[in-house]
Amino acid sequence: MRTDLVAALDIGGTKIAGGLVDGRGLILERAQRATPARQDGETVMRAVEEVLGELAASSRWGDVGSVGIGSAGPVDASAGTVSPVNVPGWRDFPLVERVRTATGGLPVELIGDGVAITAAEHWQGAARGHDNALCMVVSTGVGGGLVLGGRLHPGPTGNAGHIGHISVDLDGDPCPCGSRGCVERIASGPNIAARALEQGWRPGPDGDASAAAVAAAARAGDPVAVASFRRAARALAAGIAATATLVEIDIAVIGGGVGNAGDVLFTPLREALADYATLSFVRRLTVVPAQMGTDAGLVGAAAAALIRGPGLVRL
Amino acid sequence: MRTDLVAALDIGGTKIAGGLVDGRGLILERAQRATPARQDGETVMRAVEEVLGELAASSRWGDVGSVGIGSAGPVDASAGTVSPVNVPGWRDFPLVERVRTATGGLPVELIGDGVAITAAEHWQGAARGHDNALCMVVSTGVGGGLVLGGRLHPGPTGNAGHIGHISVDLDGDPCPCGSRGCVERIASGPNIAARALEQGWRPGPDGDASAAAVAAAARAGDPVAVASFRRAARALAAGIAATATLVEIDIAVIGGGVGNAGDVLFTPLREALADYATLSFVRRLTVVPAQMGTDAGLVGAAAAALIRGPGLVRL
Repeated sequence: MRTDLVAALDIGGTKIAGGLVDGRGLILERAQRATPARQDGETVMRAVEEVLGELAASSRWGDVGSVGIGSAGPVDASAGTVSPVNVPGWRDFPLVERVRTATGGLPVELIGDGVAITAAEHWQGAARGHDNALCMVVSTGVGGGLVLGGRLHPGPTGNAGHIGHISVDLDGDPCPCGSRGCVERIASGPNIAARALEQGWRPGPDGDASAAAVAAAARAGDPVAVASFRRAARALAAGIAATATLVEIDIAVIGGGVGNAGDVLFTPLREALADYATLSFVRRLTVVPAQMGTDAGLVGAAAAALIRGPGLVRL
Repeated sequence: MRTDLVAALDIGGTKIAGGLVDGRGLILERAQRATPARQDGETVMRAVEEVLGELAASSRWGDVGSVGIGSAGPVDASAGTVSPVNVPGWRDFPLVERVRTATGGLPVELIGDGVAITAAEHWQGAARGHDNALCMVVSTGVGGGLVLGGRLHPGPTGNAGHIGHISVDLDGDPCPCGSRGCVERIASGPNIAARALEQGWRPGPDGDASAAAVAAAARAGDPVAVASFRRAARALAAGIAATATLVEIDIAVIGGGVGNAGDVLFTPLREALADYATLSFVRRLTVVPAQMGTDAGLVGAAAAALIRGPGLVRL
């Protein structure tokens, strides 16, 4: 077993989390900053540097052999740049070079956040032991990543598995990405809530109009809430079936806030999957909840660095 | 360069083609039989054995080191069986074992026909030099295959790249596969023709109501014919964009009868692709016509055998 530590970064629109992660996936040190998402690129970078600085103050820093970054996308792993939709100050921002400089020249591995989650679920979570898997986060957005032939498949730019922006309704509603009828446009938390509201569902006295509140209403039998989850489930099923039909996965793992809704999502999802995953080689496809919690991004970023690093680990 | 020959078989619902193919992809000998598609499985197998027998009579047979089979799907490469939709006598038919026996124990490599076409286009055709490609046949059906990271990606059962049966219209028309709104259900030749007829297009005095006749009418400016091709182009674009978004391909190659329609297909297809392939990492995706002709299946089956064979060739 490799004993090097990885300095892992999980960069999102809300927070920048960092950790020193060992070869077993344990997080030995942590640091975190809020993402100054509406400020200029240098201010955002300063927050990253503060996280790294805090980690570097650890007595264990001397064992760090590489840096793994999972970032909100799109990323460009081949250019070493990131352009997160929710961090407008970073457009083609040379994150890899800046982090390499900030860490005194350590090798840096960059992947998209969906790919990072996938690396974590494959290493230690629900996709463990599966050579061909799709892992998804269904939350404010819908992201994902792929394991193919036993290996993480980030693709040339680190963005592969972007299931949230495949169209399953070619004449459907316009998506902010510019396309139409994307899985995310139908199945994300905000879209589940907006559809329920449009169809007449009303939040309770606490005024909570989130997808979690719609899930609670669905559990209590509210037919509009049930229908909104059912619609999301059909879009997810069509997207998962498309992925299986294209690359032969045998398991789909779903995490994130909407993924945590339980049977309200998974029961109609499994029903819909039987409708869309019809060819013989995709019929055995199963869908399960994610097992890694909020640390999935950090653990997955570390996994990516370990996979690519000099002491190659086959996770 | 490897000097072994491959005995290649291209098995479809209409014909069973065979050839001895060398390491440069040249077909040195040929044999062919009509597929007795409506007869029992043993009768179909006899036709395969006749093709192999004719090839074995060649003075070059002694140089044959392996057999490559590209078969109409679904196939199951892991079990060595085939269940071609249009050959009902073959259901889970143990083709690999039977061909191994018929050739005195040669190693046999089985892939789906879409994967075979892809191997051929990647080796010698339009996808040459591309590490991440989708190759498609748009004809009576819609099939395909993938090259990922520089290698053919048949998937565990040899069916990966089945783009014809991903749903791009989750509420769309039922497809014979059991799903709805599949790419094939909208973009295949028979569906292009049927849609044109439904919308009021009428064939000329020769009575030709094929997709080729619709293409000719579209070229002459018939608006219903143009619209039918445009609809097919949108479905193909949504499917190609989905594939690129999921696995990061940079080129899509289209062959088959509909693929040969030229600008009537490719002009609206490129327009539609700009609508559906919107994320930064898929915007550079190009779509081009296939270059391999009717021998693509044979050459690709040979390529698959050479890739997997003992003298590994990186095509």
